[in-house]
Amino acid sequence: MLFDDQFIQYFASFAFHATERPIALLILPGGERHLFVPRLEREHAQTFAQAERVVDYPEYPGDVHPMQRLAVHLKALGLDRGRIGVDHDGYPAVMGYSGPPVSEVLPDATVLRVSPGIDEQMALKSPAELALIRESVRWGDHAHRLLQKYTEIGASETDVEARATREATAAMVAAIGEQRRTPNRWLSGAVALYRGQIGAASALPHAMTSGVRFQAGDTLVTGAGAGVGGYLSELERTMFMGEPTAEQRTFFAHMLALQDIAFEALKPGATCASVDVAVQAYIDREGLQAYWRHHVGHGLEQRIHEAPFLDRGDARVLRPGMVLSVEPGLYVPGLGGFRHSDTILITDSGMEILTFYPRQLDDLIIG
Amino acid sequence: MLFDDQFIQYFASFAFHATERPIALLILPGGERHLFVPRLEREHAQTFAQAERVVDYPEYPGDVHPMQRLAVHLKALGLDRGRIGVDHDGYPAVMGYSGPPVSEVLPDATVLRVSPGIDEQMALKSPAELALIRESVRWGDHAHRLLQKYTEIGASETDVEARATREATAAMVAAIGEQRRTPNRWLSGAVALYRGQIGAASALPHAMTSGVRFQAGDTLVTGAGAGVGGYLSELERTMFMGEPTAEQRTFFAHMLALQDIAFEALKPGATCASVDVAVQAYIDREGLQAYWRHHVGHGLEQRIHEAPFLDRGDARVLRPGMVLSVEPGLYVPGLGGFRHSDTILITDSGMEILTFYPRQLDDLIIG
Repeated sequence: MLFDDQFIQYFASFAFHATERPIALLILPGGERHLFVPRLEREHAQTFAQAERVVDYPEYPGDVHPMQRLAVHLKALGLDRGRIGVDHDGYPAVMGYSGPPVSEVLPDATVLRVSPGIDEQMALKSPAELALIRESVRWGDHAHRLLQKYTEIGASETDVEARATREATAAMVAAIGEQRRTPNRWLSGAVALYRGQIGAASALPHAMTSGVRFQAGDTLVTGAGAGVGGYLSELERTMFMGEPTAEQRTFFAHMLALQDIAFEALKPGATCASVDVAVQAYIDREGLQAYWRHHVGHGLEQRIHEAPFLDRGDARVLRPGMVLSVEPGLYVPGLGGFRHSDTILITDSGMEILTFYPRQLDDLIIG
Repeated sequence: MLFDDQFIQYFASFAFHATERPIALLILPGGERHLFVPRLEREHAQTFAQAERVVDYPEYPGDVHPMQRLAVHLKALGLDRGRIGVDHDGYPAVMGYSGPPVSEVLPDATVLRVSPGIDEQMALKSPAELALIRESVRWGDHAHRLLQKYTEIGASETDVEARATREATAAMVAAIGEQRRTPNRWLSGAVALYRGQIGAASALPHAMTSGVRFQAGDTLVTGAGAGVGGYLSELERTMFMGEPTAEQRTFFAHMLALQDIAFEALKPGATCASVDVAVQAYIDREGLQAYWRHHVGHGLEQRIHEAPFLDRGDARVLRPGMVLSVEPGLYVPGLGGFRHSDTILITDSGMEILTFYPRQLDDLIIG
């Protein structure tokens, strides 16, 4: 019994707006899928979802709470007394929703959390998924090229992002068709942006859009990707407005070295932790601890971040077919942030870098 | 102890990207706020959050799980044995996060859910909040005018949306400045779009973007709004590509009548349920039950939907200062959807419609 919109998209190819109205996917013993939706979504689910049955309730909160109706459906199936694997004990508190947990409406069932197992399954990409991720990489790259091209002193972040994103999306649609634009909750089309990481503000790894104008001397940290058939990729680059100073060059070189160490450490059989530990060893050796802010990377596909994490606390083992971002960063207050992010695939013998945007300094100086 | 990103933005003015790294806002007895963040967000929180103290942990999952570190902080404050109000018993399963509930890491505390009380507080808007919502209405209206202007037979949905959104955002930024663009999780800038509700697909209330081209005879359902200082508004209109047929006119007229009934029923002291019941009485009387899909509306402000809900199952009482969407709809398979949405304010004597885009048929025919 899954409530998470991303899990439901993964197992039933149904993309929807998660609102206060609960939606649940039931996967019955034997594999039959029942999609439980509000009346609002009946035809949408019948048309697009890969589910053997769509069951609907009138509305939330309605005369009878949707969770009670879900319990009635389980009882009718004779499944109210066994073990029920859930991602979450009840629908999460989205947009003012409130309601009882599964364990309360089905008191005779044993409710077990299965999210870690789902995360593990999703971490391994099929050839079809990998093809979509590769196509996403291509359009994220194109959007990033336009972003770099349109960035100039005095231009507004907002305008440059909008222009690059609009043109890249139009090019993508012209090349691969709208149908490949299966909805993704995080990205629509091909996108490139700065997210406020411009100048000194780039020292905040998750700055929010600030709407500034580019100035000479700025350190920039970008982000680009594309939603293709619901799948994503991640590309980020550190760039400079004009010739970088010696200090900017030094941190850029350290950042490249960190990413090279991570690339070297990524191979099947190694733990996620070992990659982070290798990167942090360099940071400690070079006295850069004051500039460290986050782990090396994370899984991704339909979700913009997902397990496993390239983090010293993640003991999971890397396996062929995993796709991860690799993005060790250094953040220098007053100067800026230094982070490239590439999307890589764990292969039988090591890893392949799927993103192919230039990484070297000379290619990332604007003007 | 709040984990929801929207609750944290409301109580600490801190907008952030919710990821696998837990963030929690502690509001201590007496009102002092401690914001618990990953190292990644320390400077961001120190700069932007309204919190008396920022406490950080290195990373997720890290050597010690962040929830264990949060428990240590509570113990140091001597607050591990009392009653703790939470929105959620632990950090929700965002992007592959997993971890123990609050009740497990603080076994001596009594953990109580307080989300309904927070929803109730957020439902009542202060004058400052209302001013931001009114400004949002203005720019949502502008974006919608551009959307209508650029929509023509043969044009692509994607292009028209991107053009209207980009120009309206630029106009908004020029008029009120970037600073007023406090981040909002749902909207950046002024936005107008179709979300796939074009032609027969408009009969799906929550269709996702499909990237089609406009054709003669299409019924269209739009959506527009703007993020201003983190606050939103909602404007939706039913429009037609060319002269509507008799059938399109009939459903349009019913939809307008439904919205008029709702406007009439919205006043302080009435229940949310009574508005939905009044609308459904018309639907039953006119034999339109087959075309009904959802309740009449919902609260909104920083969140795109929130409590209370104009739903027969919501017994909450309307009070002056509440802001709600009013959007009864009819959905006719094969023909299209019919829904206007306006944002209204409950006043001392009744209600005020904050949105001011034309509602009448003659103003909503394109070409």
